[in-house]
Parts: sequence; C-alpha cells; structure tokens
Amino acid sequence: MSLRYLSARLAQQIDDELMSAAGAFSLDQLMELAGLACAQTVAKVYDSAKFNRVLVCCGPGNQGGDGLVAARHLSMFGYKTTIYMPKPGTKEIYQRLHTQCKNVDIATLPADSESLRAALASSDVILDAIFGFSFKGPIRAPFDDALPLISQSRLPIVSVDIPSGWDVEAGNEAGVGLNPDVLLSLTAPKEGVRSFRGRHFLGGRFVPKSMDEKFQLNLPAYPGYEQIVDITEAAQKL
Amino acid sequence: MSLRYLSARLAQQIDDELMSAAGAFSLDQLMELAGLACAQTVAKVYDSAKFNRVLVCCGPGNQGGDGLVAARHLSMFGYKTTIYMPKPGTKEIYQRLHTQCKNVDIATLPADSESLRAALASSDVILDAIFGFSFKGPIRAPFDDALPLISQSRLPIVSVDIPSGWDVEAGNEAGVGLNPDVLLSLTAPKEGVRSFRGRHFLGGRFVPKSMDEKFQLNLPAYPGYEQIVDITEAAQKL
Repeated sequence: MSLRYLSARLAQQIDDELMSAAGAFSLDQLMELAGLACAQTVAKVYDSAKFNRVLVCCGPGNQGGDGLVAARHLSMFGYKTTIYMPKPGTKEIYQRLHTQCKNVDIATLPADSESLRAALASSDVILDAIFGFSFKGPIRAPFDDALPLISQSRLPIVSVDIPSGWDVEAGNEAGVGLNPDVLLSLTAPKEGVRSFRGRHFLGGRFVPKSMDEKFQLNLPAYPGYEQIVDITEAAQKL
Repeated sequence: MSLRYLSARLAQQIDDELMSAAGAFSLDQLMELAGLACAQTVAKVYDSAKFNRVLVCCGPGNQGGDGLVAARHLSMFGYKTTIYMPKPGTKEIYQRLHTQCKNVDIATLPADSESLRAALASSDVILDAIFGFSFKGPIRAPFDDALPLISQSRLPIVSVDIPSGWDVEAGNEAGVGLNPDVLLSLTAPKEGVRSFRGRHFLGGRFVPKSMDEKFQLNLPAYPGYEQIVDITEAAQKL
C-alpha cells in the first residue's frame, strides 16, 4: 500500500475535518505540532554546529504561522534564527506567534529586497514556509522578487509541504519555484511533489487512524516518539 | 549554578507570565507541549513492546489537560492507552482534548473504584497527571480512594510536576502521596520534590532565556531537538 498524494482540495478537507467540532483540534495545537516538526526536520538534517544561521521565510497564510513556530523551536534548539516575513498574516494567532519569537530574541528583517539579500549572504540554511497547500499562482509581490533571490543564494533549502512557487498539483512545471534539498510534507504529501527527489520527511503525527483509513492515506509508521518520519525511499518508489 | 526549585507561588507566576499578553502563549500551545513531553517521558523509560498498556490518570485541573494530550500522543506512539478521569475539568479545552482522545479510540473508565481496580490489574504503567502545582490538600473524593489503589497496584508510575498527594512545597511529609519511579518536572522542579530520588526529567522547552534569567531558574541545556532532558544527576546533587 503506497502513500497517497493529496489534491489541494483533499488537503483542505483533511485540515477542515481536524479542526471541525468532530475533529476538535484548535489551530494553535496543529500549528504548534506542525512547526515543531518543521524545526525538527531542519535539526535532523542540518547540524546546528555547522549550519547555525537559519533564515525562516514566512508567508501570509497558515504556513507562515508554522514557520513562526518553527523559528521559535529552532531558537530553543540553539540555532541563530532570523525571520523574513514581508507580508505578515492578519490572523490574531500570527501576532501572538510573532511576539513569542521576539521574546526569544529572534530578529525580523525589514521587508525590502536588499535586507533579504544581505540576510541570505549571512545564513547557512533556509526554512521555506512561504506558500502552503492553499497557494494559487501567480506569485505576487514581494515574493516574485524574493523567490529568485532565495534560489540564487544557493543555500540549502528545507521546504514545508509544497516548495514555494510550485503548483500544489502540477508541481514546478512553470519552473519558477524553489528547488529545495529537503521537503517536509504535512499530514500527507501533495500531488505536486511526486517528482521531488530530495530528502523527504513526513510530519503531522496527529492524524487519527480513522481519518487515515477514511481517506486511504496509507500513512507510514513513525519511529519511537518522533514527530517526523523519513519517507525518502517510500516516496521515490511511487 | 544549580537548578532552582520553585515555590507554588513562583510556579504560578511563571505560568501566568507565559500566558500574559507579553508572553503571548495560549493554553492550547503550552498544554500541547507539556503533554507531548509527558508522553515522551513515558516512551523514553518504558518501551512500548514491554509496557504497552498505559493508564493515564487525569485530575480536574490543567494537569489533567496535559494528561489528555499525553494520552493522545502515547496512542500515536503505539501504546494501548486508557484514561481514568473521574472528575473531568470544566474548561472548554478539556472537552476538546477529550474528544481528540476518543477519536483515536482511547477508552475512558467509568468513575467508580471497581473500574479503576480492574484497569490497574490490566495496565503496565501509570501516568499520574492528577494533581499539579496548584494542588492544596487535603485529598478529596474520589482521589482519596484512587491514590491508595494506584499505590497498591505496585505498577511503575510516571508523575507529572509533583507526585499526586505531595504538598507542592513540603513534599510527601504526610505520607499519603504516590511514590513514582519517574518524575517529569515542567518548566522547573518544585520545592516539594527535592527529596525525590527516582529518575527525573525536565520538560517545558519553551521558557525564554529572559525568563530563565529573570527568575534565576538556571535551566539545563536540552539535547538535540528533544522536548525533555534527564536531570536525575543534577537534581540529586542538590
């Protein structure tokens, strides 16, 4: 039984069910677990002794919130973390998560391209939490400028769920997206990443078995008490 | 610099600051991280192959909420988890966390002593999330009956923050509390557990450095991306 790749619609449906009255999860809970999984993925692959400076790039939607949670955990893990968030989300949770980052002395870049360029020159790894599974192109300002700058930096990139700029279902057909080294899929991989051939992790160890079965996700077993599982081989066999 | 042991008042103050407008944490977030740390502590010490059946005992306060979160994670980790919660908390979050447990097929015992007795006879380990740092004796029904039953079971016990029945500051002077094998202190150990000589972990990897310094907690470094750290030796030197 192979892992199911999700359409954008199905990914949204699963998220909605988790946060429905029946699923009973709050956004705070799911974001905390998702962001922790993001931070653990960075820490798993990029040792803080060698890749200490992480630039966390956050978009305006829920994935940007995951990024803020990840930034905080990375800071607790001993990384020097900086946030690039040129278009902060408007939800109240966003402000709270950002305050939590400020409380652990994480700096946020000014929104201009020059600041991003300078920050890229003094970073060791990128966490790409710009666009998630609800992304619909085209890429709008300021991210139309930011994505090429990030790509040109040639820094290693860890993308969350769907590499930014990729279509959630068609992938990087347009060729304008980031090319991450590592991908963390949340709850289940999305159709657009079938062609991804880097290191691939799965996070979201909160999907009930009943939901796994209902949507025929065929989720793999996670090791021990980990919040992420390496699915590189499983994903590449498909 | 040795770890600081907290009075009940100081523990409350730290919690309040974390959840103040300045601290910006929501109860959902802190409970999720605390409960995950509880589940990881059980998993760290008691292998699911040998100690598969965990009875999670929840009190009516916030610690009971941590217990519910832990129960869910333990279930995701492969443990057969059962909840003993004779006096459910009234906060709305409690209902949601309980629904999440039901969604992963965790059974909740009827509230009577006979059911508890039977469940103890078919459990391998206890997670004690009955009373936390806001506990003030005497022990009221139904826990006055439950604690002796749990002790008499001679099952291994993992207690959260303060073993149930212990005074938060004076410890187990009255001799009516549980005697856990493992203790998970959250944010910092409480004065009452100075005499604890079992395996001792610390969780709550979310306390900002500024708060650590302000309250002179002298928190230890956590390893890698773990949410818990073993402080057995550090605690026993004090």
